Amino acid sequence: MAGTFAFAISGATAARRRNLDVFGIGALAFTVACGGGIIRDLCIGVIPPAGLANWQYLVVAIIAAGMTVGLYSFVQLLNRPVLFFDAVGLSLFAVTGAQKALHFGHNGEVAVLLGITTAVGGGVIRDILLNRVPIILEKEIYALAALIGALIVVLGDYLNWIPRDWVAVIALGVCFTLRMLALHYHWNLPIPSNDKSDASDKQP
Amino acid sequence: MAGTFAFAISGATAARRRNLDVFGIGALAFTVACGGGIIRDLCIGVIPPAGLANWQYLVVAIIAAGMTVGLYSFVQLLNRPVLFFDAVGLSLFAVTGAQKALHFGHNGEVAVLLGITTAVGGGVIRDILLNRVPIILEKEIYALAALIGALIVVLGDYLNWIPRDWVAVIALGVCFTLRMLALHYHWNLPIPSNDKSDASDKQP
Amino acid sequence: MAGTFAFAISGATAARRRNLDVFGIGALAFTVACGGGIIRDLCIGVIPPAGLANWQYLVVAIIAAGMTVGLYSFVQLLNRPVLFFDAVGLSLFAVTGAQKALHFGHNGEVAVLLGITTAVGGGVIRDILLNRVPIILEKEIYALAALIGALIVVLGDYLNWIPRDWVAVIALGVCFTLRMLALHYHWNLPIPSNDKSDASDKQP
Repeated sequence: MAGTFAFAISGATAARRRNLDVFGIGALAFTVACGGGIIRDLCIGVIPPAGLANWQYLVVAIIAAGMTVGLYSFVQLLNRPVLFFDAVGLSLFAVTGAQKALHFGHNGEVAVLLGITTAVGGGVIRDILLNRVPIILEKEIYALAALIGALIVVLGDYLNWIPRDWVAVIALGVCFTLRMLALHYHWNLPIPSNDKSDASDKQP
Repeated sequence: MAGTFAFAISGATAARRRNLDVFGIGALAFTVACGGGIIRDLCIGVIPPAGLANWQYLVVAIIAAGMTVGLYSFVQLLNRPVLFFDAVGLSLFAVTGAQKALHFGHNGEVAVLLGITTAVGGGVIRDILLNRVPIILEKEIYALAALIGALIVVLGDYLNWIPRDWVAVIALGVCFTLRMLALHYHWNLPIPSNDKSDASDKQP
Repeated sequence: MAGTFAFAISGATAARRRNLDVFGIGALAFTVACGGGIIRDLCIGVIPPAGLANWQYLVVAIIAAGMTVGLYSFVQLLNRPVLFFDAVGLSLFAVTGAQKALHFGHNGEVAVLLGITTAVGGGVIRDILLNRVPIILEKEIYALAALIGALIVVLGDYLNWIPRDWVAVIALGVCFTLRMLALHYHWNLPIPSNDKSDASDKQP
């Protein structure tokens, strides 16, 4: 829930900065918080998706949107805590997303891909709705941390050396630590340089 | 069907204004008319989605696209009627979307959320494809009318005071009236002002 | 697989041109290669989608992304072959997408619509993520070729005059030839002219 709240705050804040109305702010808070999980549930056949069926998510999103509308200066003070909770949410969503896919009997690849999707899907939808290139594709180690967290869950499940709960704790710890270090040291993945001018960007 | 047609006209008109080719105009007409319903059907497990399986939707969308290509000055005259039918479509899609979710045994929250999705999903996809921030997040009371319509359906189903058909009529009436009043008086939801300049828009 | 590779190269190249980081390039390669098929599988109830469950797709996408990062000048030389393979992929995806929908017992309309979706879905998602209007809606005969390929599969299935494999070969040939001719002669679908200035682009 802490992760859901942090994700909802990030959606609501981004919506407010783009001058959306209060409905738009609420819609983005909910979308960022639940979008990734809804896509995951559709892909593993959980009908209806948990994000739609459990009222807790909706309530958390509405509270986050309400705070962003009513207590904006307070939310801005929260900027550092929000990045902290966002990293918590990223780790939790990646690990639980991968676990849920395994739990429903899917293979490791599905689990890793859907762990990432759960963790970053909401943010990607937010950026699509706000009409910009998704940030996670451009900078900082974000999706990569989710990938590694989900991968640890799947490897732990295959190797079966240590209890599953321990695996989850390790995966959470690694993903969270990696994200916080990346934030602190501004780690970025390399961007290939484009010396050649690009002739035709238009061909499909 | 009137609602489907109005939605298809709105998609085709927006596509034409952006200089898409005739295929793009047809694709947008179909997407706006059926996109919301397809997402709803995926979320409640109706496979294949009705929008794909019933030829009526496709035919209506193609007729709407054809009219927009061939009889554009006539379609522009239709601007006021289209807004009228668009409000009809909004109400019908919100009410039938919520009813369909309840009918398939889902809870009230799912029904409300999917009622809204059915009503506004097509328009959101249209704006994403045309590369702009979805209008419903920015201005006028549109999604809120759908929310209220879907909410009345769900409340009527829970309370069970009056027959379900009456509930549907009331929900349709309230949603439609609210939308027409909002159009006429240019009602907007409040947009929180941003006094503080926004420092970093970039953090995910 | 040749088609998957060509689609992945097109996604990775577009991502590199937009200065995405290496993760973004890999993500786009995978999305373009598998996005259309994943949407199709969700719509026909194949859970989990083949694009997520079969490691071959992921490996092909990673190889394509790696080549685009490490051997960019070589990939640029491939521009013409890539357009060739892209046309191969378009034909294969349209035909197999339609066949898969028929195979799972859906009607002809679903098969045609999902054949197109399989073929062009990945490219549309690529353009949405890169924040531009999908190219297939604007220029050249691309989706139309997929439409005709899928239509031939469905007609062949209904009429049942000749063996299904022959139908597939004819559909592939027609779709591929049409696309290559369109590329060579720069065939475009007509774009309706807008003499009238557009008054209000804002109304939903």
